[in-house]
Parts: sequence; C-alpha cells; structure tokens
Amino acid sequence: MLRVPPGERAALAELDTSATPGGPSGKAAGTEAIARMAAPLADLQERLYAASTAGDRRRLLLVLQGMDTSGKGGTVKHVIGQFNPVGCRVRAFKAPTREERAHSFLWRIEKALPQPGEIGIFDRSHYEDVLVPRVRGLVPADRVERRYAQINAFEKALADDGVTVVKVFLHIGYEEQRERLLARLDDPRKHWKFSPGDLEDRALWPAYQEAYELAMERCSTEAAPWYVVPADRKWYRNWAVGKLLLERLEAIGPQYPPADFDVQECRKRLLAT
Amino acid sequence: MLRVPPGERAALAELDTSATPGGPSGKAAGTEAIARMAAPLADLQERLYAASTAGDRRRLLLVLQGMDTSGKGGTVKHVIGQFNPVGCRVRAFKAPTREERAHSFLWRIEKALPQPGEIGIFDRSHYEDVLVPRVRGLVPADRVERRYAQINAFEKALADDGVTVVKVFLHIGYEEQRERLLARLDDPRKHWKFSPGDLEDRALWPAYQEAYELAMERCSTEAAPWYVVPADRKWYRNWAVGKLLLERLEAIGPQYPPADFDVQECRKRLLAT
Repeated sequence: MLRVPPGERAALAELDTSATPGGPSGKAAGTEAIARMAAPLADLQERLYAASTAGDRRRLLLVLQGMDTSGKGGTVKHVIGQFNPVGCRVRAFKAPTREERAHSFLWRIEKALPQPGEIGIFDRSHYEDVLVPRVRGLVPADRVERRYAQINAFEKALADDGVTVVKVFLHIGYEEQRERLLARLDDPRKHWKFSPGDLEDRALWPAYQEAYELAMERCSTEAAPWYVVPADRKWYRNWAVGKLLLERLEAIGPQYPPADFDVQECRKRLLAT
Repeated sequence: MLRVPPGERAALAELDTSATPGGPSGKAAGTEAIARMAAPLADLQERLYAASTAGDRRRLLLVLQGMDTSGKGGTVKHVIGQFNPVGCRVRAFKAPTREERAHSFLWRIEKALPQPGEIGIFDRSHYEDVLVPRVRGLVPADRVERRYAQINAFEKALADDGVTVVKVFLHIGYEEQRERLLARLDDPRKHWKFSPGDLEDRALWPAYQEAYELAMERCSTEAAPWYVVPADRKWYRNWAVGKLLLERLEAIGPQYPPADFDVQECRKRLLAT
C-alpha cells in the first residue's frame, strides 16, 4: 500500500493492482493475519469509545473510494464487521438527493461524521463531488479546483478537532472489474448491485483514473493522507485496511479513563444492598 | 421469552430471570445455536437491504431496554455484531442534552430511526421518558400517561410505514445486578461503565420494575409488541434476541429485487470492453 506524498502524483496505471506490498505471503497467511488483528482492533475501539465518555474528542474517519466493484462494501462487511457496532457510524453515499444538492457538497458529509469515540466509515464520500463532476463535465473546472481547497480546509478542521482521517483508494484493474461485473450479471441475487450506469462509468475508466490521481495529488495532506491499496486480491485489501486502522488507532493510543468516583466507597455501598 | 399481551400486566417479580424458556439445553448448545443463526440472519439482512434499493420501505427496529448491566450493550456487540454494519443503524441514548430537552421527547428518536432496508437498534429509547420521570417524579403522572398514548400512536405510524418494531426488556435479577456492578468496580478497564448514579437507580429497583410493568402493559400492542427476555444467562439472552430477529425477518420475507435492466444486453456490452 502506498501513502501518497502531498502534492505528488501517484501514477495509478503503473501500480500493480494485484500486488500485495508489505502483506502476508498468500491468501491463507493473509486470512490468518486478519483474524489475529480482530482482538487488538476491538480492544482499541473499546478504549477509544471509553475515553470519549470522559471528554476525549478523538475519533477516526475511514473514507473508502474506488471504482465500481473495487470492494468498498466488502471492506465494510469484513473489516468494519470486526468492530462493536455501537461504536461504528457507517454511511454509504449515493447520488445526492434534491435536498442534498440544494446545500453545499459538504453538508451531507458533516451530518454523517463520527462523534467522539466513534469510528466513522464512508463508502464513497465528498470526493465523489470532485470525481463525477470533473469526469462528466457537470461543473466548471475552476469550481472543482475550489472544491479541492474546500476539502483540504474541511479535513484540516476535522484533524484539529481530534479526527484521524484515513482515506483509502481501492485500486482494482480494468480486467478485474470486468470479471466482477460479470459475476454480478450472472447471479440474480446480485442484480441489485448492478446498474447500466456502471458500464458508462467503465467506458470512462481513463478519465476516472486521472480524476482520482488529481484528487489525491491535491488532497493528500499531512492532516489527511491518501493511501492507494491494490485491491484485486480481497484478502490483501482486507489485510491492508485492517493494518492501516490498527496503526492509526495505536497512534491515537486511547486509554480507559480513570474512575471519577470513589471506587471503595461505591463497593461498600453496593455490598450493603 | 414472553410476549406481553396488549393491556396485560407482566408480573416481573414472578418471572425467573435465570430461566431459559424455549431455549437450547445449556450454554454449549446455546452458543452452537447462536452460531447457526449467523448465516440466515446475514442472508435476510442482505435481502432486506437489497429490496430497499428497489423501493421496498420495510425495515426493522429493535428497542433494547433493561436495568443497568442487563446486557443491552452486550446484545448489540454479540447479536447485532453478526450483521453487515452497512445496514445497521445503532444508537445508544443517554440522558437528554439541553437541545433534546427543548424538543418533544420523540424528536431525537425520529432522527435515529432506521431507513428503508436497515436494521435499527436502540440501546435505551423513548421508553426512558416514561421510566425515569415516573420513578423520580420529575414529570406529573398525567403527562406520563399522555406519553404512553403518544408512543403508541408513534409506533403505529412506524408500523404503517413498514417498520417492524421489536421491543425487548432484558430482565435480570437483583442479585445478578449486584454481581455485575461488582465486576465493573473490580476491573479498572470497566470503571467507565460505572457511575454512582447506578447505585441510586438500584435503590429504586421496585419502583423501576413497576414502571417497566406499566409501560409494557400500556404500550405492548399488536403493531409493536413487548417481549420479556430472562437475561441472567448471557448465552440465553443472545439466543433469544437472535431468534426473535430471525423470526421477524422471516416474517418480513424480503426478496432480492428483479433486474430493471436487460441482463443479456448488459452482458454483451460488458464483454465487448
């Protein structure tokens, strides 16, 4: 997985989408490594949640982006599914509604942010508003440029307020996407996940890749870095995102808050009942 | 587990909190039975979510109530944790904030409701507003009576809009609560879960039991029934709530929506790329 240096362009076409950089040796080892992460992830999540009850405002926001079938939903299911649901705030963003379009593009994002102690997960995000409009020419180029700056200011403010922002681009290959779309078409239980619009987006593949490159170049910051995760192999994708969350949560280092009451006295009172 | 008949009083003191009515023969069998529920629960949840993408407004709301340490949080972690987090909307309600108090007691509830296709989970709920005020005499009795009626009208409207409302009272014993509070006091990692206020509530145990009996008598309806789950045994509690969710989801019977596009034509277009 690659952390995009601020202001630098990650040439997506040159990155191997089936690679497993830094990862376990194969699927079996990967699955085992993922299972080993479950306990420390759950422990850190509980500490983060506990700390918030004593006023700690820190929290984490995971932003998942990627082409159709890149595994955003699968990551939520398999990686976020390991956490305690009470501390998770998951939001899958669709095309904006009429009400959402009437507001700034960050309005619906603000409303979905994790609260102190929570882990927020965005399946798609405010980045859609610098990708789709740019690729489809829906918004003038200078307005997209202004949005990059707005996003950076927004994410900096989040970081200043205690939000660890982790942005992940799930990078799949053009061939791999064909296989995955085909699997959706060939299974009636998966037809609901498919829309003919997916083929239109696929036809715009190079434009989307360029829009992603540009968004990451402009918006990978110290406060809120972008990571590119090769995502053709699902086990590697899960491992990489889990690892990233583990590292960021360890960096937060949340602690159980000390008692703000007299433990021995409460103990006595309880035993008298 | 007992479904409270509308208008009838469930005498909580006469129900054995360590019983396992209708359940597996013991902890080992219970744990196994819970594990066997995971796949059908996940399947039904996915169908429910999928159906909503085609306009099906149906969803489920699980309301969890019970005395401190009765296992509301544990149920969320162990039962709800089996679902895909993207389709779950969990909300733990605390004492109302100043802003929440400035609104009707149902205002904050409305904002936390599950959307079509989702499973909503309330750890505490609008029922707190007919329990705490009654027990502590914060609100005149006639106002509490009016709230029962407001709750029934509110829940009936939810049911009419496609929400399957399942309300569960996790029933623990007075002795069992002492043990669980003691365990919290004796483990510094659990101090954040304890507050001296828990002892004040414990001192009001009979008044709370009565307030629960009355709330269930008034508000167990055909549209939104109350269930009493004996909760001294955690495995039974998890099994019973899982079973209840499974039954209600099976009754909803959500189906994958049929394709609203030409599958063969899309297949051809895809293979040409």
